[in-house]
Amino acid sequence: MISGHLLSAADLTKAEALNLLSTAKELAAITDGPNKKLPTLRGKTVVNLFFEDSTRTRISFETAAKRLSADVINFSAKGSSVSKGESLKDTAQTLQAMGADAVVIRHGSSGAAKRLADTQWIQAAIINAGDGTHEHPTQALLDAFTIKQHLRSDKEDLTGVKVLIVGDILHSRVARSNVILLTKLGAQVTLVAPPTLLPVGVNEWPVKISYDLDSEIENCDVVMMLRIQLERMADSFFPTEREYSRRYGLNSARLARLSKNAIVMHPGPMNRGLEISAESADDLKSVIIDQVKNGVAVRMAVLYELLGGAQIGESK
Amino acid sequence: MISGHLLSAADLTKAEALNLLSTAKELAAITDGPNKKLPTLRGKTVVNLFFEDSTRTRISFETAAKRLSADVINFSAKGSSVSKGESLKDTAQTLQAMGADAVVIRHGSSGAAKRLADTQWIQAAIINAGDGTHEHPTQALLDAFTIKQHLRSDKEDLTGVKVLIVGDILHSRVARSNVILLTKLGAQVTLVAPPTLLPVGVNEWPVKISYDLDSEIENCDVVMMLRIQLERMADSFFPTEREYSRRYGLNSARLARLSKNAIVMHPGPMNRGLEISAESADDLKSVIIDQVKNGVAVRMAVLYELLGGAQIGESK
Amino acid sequence: MISGHLLSAADLTKAEALNLLSTAKELAAITDGPNKKLPTLRGKTVVNLFFEDSTRTRISFETAAKRLSADVINFSAKGSSVSKGESLKDTAQTLQAMGADAVVIRHGSSGAAKRLADTQWIQAAIINAGDGTHEHPTQALLDAFTIKQHLRSDKEDLTGVKVLIVGDILHSRVARSNVILLTKLGAQVTLVAPPTLLPVGVNEWPVKISYDLDSEIENCDVVMMLRIQLERMADSFFPTEREYSRRYGLNSARLARLSKNAIVMHPGPMNRGLEISAESADDLKSVIIDQVKNGVAVRMAVLYELLGGAQIGESK
Repeated sequence: MISGHLLSAADLTKAEALNLLSTAKELAAITDGPNKKLPTLRGKTVVNLFFEDSTRTRISFETAAKRLSADVINFSAKGSSVSKGESLKDTAQTLQAMGADAVVIRHGSSGAAKRLADTQWIQAAIINAGDGTHEHPTQALLDAFTIKQHLRSDKEDLTGVKVLIVGDILHSRVARSNVILLTKLGAQVTLVAPPTLLPVGVNEWPVKISYDLDSEIENCDVVMMLRIQLERMADSFFPTEREYSRRYGLNSARLARLSKNAIVMHPGPMNRGLEISAESADDLKSVIIDQVKNGVAVRMAVLYELLGGAQIGESK
Repeated sequence: MISGHLLSAADLTKAEALNLLSTAKELAAITDGPNKKLPTLRGKTVVNLFFEDSTRTRISFETAAKRLSADVINFSAKGSSVSKGESLKDTAQTLQAMGADAVVIRHGSSGAAKRLADTQWIQAAIINAGDGTHEHPTQALLDAFTIKQHLRSDKEDLTGVKVLIVGDILHSRVARSNVILLTKLGAQVTLVAPPTLLPVGVNEWPVKISYDLDSEIENCDVVMMLRIQLERMADSFFPTEREYSRRYGLNSARLARLSKNAIVMHPGPMNRGLEISAESADDLKSVIIDQVKNGVAVRMAVLYELLGGAQIGESK
Repeated sequence: MISGHLLSAADLTKAEALNLLSTAKELAAITDGPNKKLPTLRGKTVVNLFFEDSTRTRISFETAAKRLSADVINFSAKGSSVSKGESLKDTAQTLQAMGADAVVIRHGSSGAAKRLADTQWIQAAIINAGDGTHEHPTQALLDAFTIKQHLRSDKEDLTGVKVLIVGDILHSRVARSNVILLTKLGAQVTLVAPPTLLPVGVNEWPVKISYDLDSEIENCDVVMMLRIQLERMADSFFPTEREYSRRYGLNSARLARLSKNAIVMHPGPMNRGLEISAESADDLKSVIIDQVKNGVAVRMAVLYELLGGAQIGESK
């Protein structure tokens, strides 16, 4: 990880990424018992700096930090001086001065996390928890962890795993981070979306592009459905909800055509009945709950590595 | 408690209820000193899942959980993905996956807590902190605790205690839970309300009904005033505020007619001057502050019993 | 501190104030290492009771309390029963009953903290974190700490330090608390503001008054710029933003005229480009970040003294 931060899946070498997955696995095993708490980060302070609401991501990081015994300060930027015009610089320097050891930042602008880390404003470890349409690296890590757990548990990496990512690629930081990380780990990624929901320049990404879910569905190991932002439906990006669902949703018919060991993923929260049917979400092939669970483990690993915890074994 | 949850006062056997009151008393005694903290639930995670604002109830549970050294995650469903259409099922599975040991749920729909517990969505202990107009069982427990403390401290149960519950019975989960629990413990309950504020079927409840506070006030040991929801005043349920207060409010004249040892209760927050006069709220007969204090003890007991703490003596 | 509270800078004797600064210095030194946590207040509960949003002040107190191992309950009065008409009295008694050891209160009405402390509603230590336009004593303490650190580190007090306080004195609790505390510690304070932004009776304050920043800027050791509340711009108190900035803002020209060892202060959050230029805020003379850092130390000291921690040395 570049200079002690986690800003982008692109910053991680393959070895670093695999190391994080391995640490996450170890931490998950240790904290899976009745006492889920390790003293490793006692005396450290983790600030959740959220400029956008995201209860799920916030409580996943909060849970991860508390399991490592760190103190957590929730800083919702809504209604704070930040929204009254304080600059990101001043917010950063304030958190630095208060002794933050890590800042988990969620921001509506692409590049916000990097901006925080690149300056000399703050020495804390910066963790990007989603910046605009840019990246969401811990989501990609938890997805890689989940794929490895189900399909490559005895292998080193994800070589040869065929992954479909389906939906609004254009606006999805989840898709961007996953393309970078999964291909780095050896997976073959196919993006499936209507042409209006693909970003400019996507032809240079190391992926295959398809506009037709039905022609791809039988030939994959993983189908990852992206959340549709209902508020974008009003824009001209989209056909109607019903049309979108019919062409790009995961329904029972498509579910039935998946190969025997394929898994269904979704970053949550789901719009059941829109991009994914209730039946698909609850099918045995669905590993969506595992993703949530692994999210805590992966975030523990990231905090652990960035904040320089003691040896895992020792710290128990 | 049915299957490790606390959903309704109706689920508690008399023995279970008395056991909770006794545990609460013990925990209150231990934590009444300068160090209010027990290590009993260290490593457990309690999630406050609040779909409705209720600062008082939330901080009472938060305080109770922290005194037992549990980690607390506050999940206000306002502005979260839940309000963006995520199903209760997905929220539940998310909390399960993140490792919640108990979920304290406050919801506007009657039956929400039960729905959470009845499914296989989540294995955590579910505690109903108020569901629609249905139930609020920890409120009934703290009320029972407070009545016993003041009127039956040397007795086994509440046999023979005469309780008036006054006000908007129709919409009150507090009234429902109290009727169930207090009568189970031997109390005689009389509901006092205008006919428009009594629920259909109330005649089958194990209570006496009265429309006239003045004819009941002299003959009770406990007068429990319910909070008037000012927003309902606009509906046709109510006469004017002034008329309501005159007929069903606890004022000085009525206070003076209470028997010597009678106590005044209110679940809070009070509308002073509406359902209860300031003088009544602050009178020596008022045990309203004790109710708040006992609320923490009772919630500690519930968490303690549900999350399987060690022996109280040992855990110190 | 009068009766175990911190309501006003006026309540502190000079000896008490200096003692707090000295405790803060000690605590800062102990907690400046990798483990920032002391067990001193374990088992104590600190409630942040905020009737106005102020994320910075809230997280400064929260950080201070957690470093001393206290439990922190955040009680935002917005959307709570308080905003539904519950009296301050009932809120106070509720917190008392729940076992609060300290209540940090921020309120829009001058005198709210004192009102809480003067009554018998609550025995907890009350700490005024800003009440209307009245006082903000911990801000004054952190400012005194910062001035002493930079200009009088080897002296007993602030004798002879020349301080300019510039801006909207009329509405500033920061100015009020600083005038009281800094003059008590020996500093000479000059208030610089347009006549419309000076309070009635200011002639009786132990300060010099000036309407002209340029004639004062060369002859001071400290220039403390107050935040301009943009919402007041609409009122008739103010000239235009531009005019205000030109006459009372700290810009590069004025910065250059400061004496060699002078320091620049601001309570934050800053309106860069309005009352202070970005260049001034980031200049080597600026100690604004130190103020934030010292805020945590000073608040630790206040909690420590009020909640009767053990000896600092022992408590480690």
